[in-house]
Amino acid sequence: MSKVFILKSRPDGFASESNFDLIETPVGEMEDGQVLVRGKFYSVDPYMRGRMSDAKSYIAPFELNAPITGGVVAVVVDSKSPDFVKGDYVVGMMKWQDIQIVWAKDIQKIDVQIAPPSYYLGLFGLTGLTAYLGLNKIGKPKAAETVVVSGAGGAVGMVVGQIAKIKGCNVIGIAGHKDKINYLKNQLDFDNVIDYHDLDKLDNELMKSAPLGVDIYFDNVGGAVSDHVMKYINHNARIIICGQIALYNDPAKAYGPYPQIALLKNSALMKGFIVGDYQDSFHDAQIQLIQWYKEGALKGHETIIIGFDKLPKTFISLFQGDNIGKLIVEAP
Amino acid sequence: MSKVFILKSRPDGFASESNFDLIETPVGEMEDGQVLVRGKFYSVDPYMRGRMSDAKSYIAPFELNAPITGGVVAVVVDSKSPDFVKGDYVVGMMKWQDIQIVWAKDIQKIDVQIAPPSYYLGLFGLTGLTAYLGLNKIGKPKAAETVVVSGAGGAVGMVVGQIAKIKGCNVIGIAGHKDKINYLKNQLDFDNVIDYHDLDKLDNELMKSAPLGVDIYFDNVGGAVSDHVMKYINHNARIIICGQIALYNDPAKAYGPYPQIALLKNSALMKGFIVGDYQDSFHDAQIQLIQWYKEGALKGHETIIIGFDKLPKTFISLFQGDNIGKLIVEAP
Repeated sequence: MSKVFILKSRPDGFASESNFDLIETPVGEMEDGQVLVRGKFYSVDPYMRGRMSDAKSYIAPFELNAPITGGVVAVVVDSKSPDFVKGDYVVGMMKWQDIQIVWAKDIQKIDVQIAPPSYYLGLFGLTGLTAYLGLNKIGKPKAAETVVVSGAGGAVGMVVGQIAKIKGCNVIGIAGHKDKINYLKNQLDFDNVIDYHDLDKLDNELMKSAPLGVDIYFDNVGGAVSDHVMKYINHNARIIICGQIALYNDPAKAYGPYPQIALLKNSALMKGFIVGDYQDSFHDAQIQLIQWYKEGALKGHETIIIGFDKLPKTFISLFQGDNIGKLIVEAP
Repeated sequence: MSKVFILKSRPDGFASESNFDLIETPVGEMEDGQVLVRGKFYSVDPYMRGRMSDAKSYIAPFELNAPITGGVVAVVVDSKSPDFVKGDYVVGMMKWQDIQIVWAKDIQKIDVQIAPPSYYLGLFGLTGLTAYLGLNKIGKPKAAETVVVSGAGGAVGMVVGQIAKIKGCNVIGIAGHKDKINYLKNQLDFDNVIDYHDLDKLDNELMKSAPLGVDIYFDNVGGAVSDHVMKYINHNARIIICGQIALYNDPAKAYGPYPQIALLKNSALMKGFIVGDYQDSFHDAQIQLIQWYKEGALKGHETIIIGFDKLPKTFISLFQGDNIGKLIVEAP
């Protein structure tokens, strides 16, 4: 038997542990082309909140009473595929299940000599790919441009800022906790990091650190923070809508000043970014991310919570904004 | 002496005639390279409301106590330029002045054999160029896609819909008066035209006439109408922000549901469109518009108000939405 988390009910507002249930389920028998794996690192990500609702979106909702799925790094226990042997580390979209059978075509082997295996969920995984492809495909940063990133202390934001620095940009982060702000400024060399809690200060700080205006806004949070940034965008600014975490749990917050007016005045572009649309670029992007990491230009940062049973609680904590960098649950 | 309209005061909300003043001013003496012209057709456009405020925008505000300027078709009275002779029809940005001196480099000769001279303000002028370039450069319509255009009975909207029909699209107009709606349906072959006054009906009609969703939304109005259209956009939809006439006169209306959420869910693109950014494409675009007009694929439609002194009143009437097609003041 194995243990798996299922979605018991759809959250109304913030998710709670009561929306999840941990049940026992048979592991089953492998067919040819399948692999038996034990989950090692589980990714928890804000976009999963969207899948817990049944509204139409870019990715199908989780089904009720069916397993939660997400990014997982696992170790191969047994294999009926020529491509994998016992002991291999693999990554892919898998169930929140401790031991499970997966198709070989749905997983990828990872090189754990380069970096900790969990980096294939974060810096080299969908997190890093989201930052790299969102910034480059929509933002197209040029040296000396000013890039603002919200949710800068989160998993994606932290990589966005580092890549923008590599590109020679003036990088301003917006984050919400003193330790995040210090880390981004001191360890990752952001040019400025602004605390979003004081919105008046946000205006002053933006004017001070972006005296020539904002060319690229990588938006992970939405809401009032974004309204303030939109006041400072330049002609031909590019706004990447990667997340709107401020709005996910509270429909009442989904109202504010229309950004269309600033877009019109500035010929600016705003585009929703879904990393899955750019799968053709994943391979090259990952090579670049690993290269930068090896050169020391890009740093990974994780908050790791120990214990498979902590998955729901850890997911919920994403929305409290306390974690720095990529949030991961480890099953030791 | 000549007569010229100046901006006497900046409007707060809707413009009124008291914001304008008609004064007498000397015509002056021509220098080499200049031309003396008599205004014949004056364009009034919603974007001019923006210039009457002093807020930062893509185009400089009108100065107080200085002439209003806009698109004008004029007849050459005298010339100190080898490029123009008496009797030539010309078009350019000129003052709201009955007789004035302009630089030859700032005006273009027009061919009045092809169409009425006023068409160089509308269908072949900035209006037509706005429709053509906004739709093609941002919207990139493909045959069988669904295009929604708001302000469909206005100068730009009417051309957008016709071009989208030429491109083989399913074209849905949103307009506000029975005679506009009938004209668009019956004379311009829009697939459907919806009255925006009944927002519930708008939803029903959109679902009915765009059963596969909306691929392109050409937005001239903004506000609540746009909020409804955003509910039906498809993956990879393109939204052209060309005007936000619903918001120009009333800052309180500039609040509503954030479109960012729909952009994110659909990987959709929203871009502000300012025709002046595409000057390199004006020449080719105008050739195409004239060609379609000659073939009968594109129709011009104007509302012409007689009398130079009617300029302010006619401009103000733009925001009441009563005019069909391009609104022009003729100085007989």
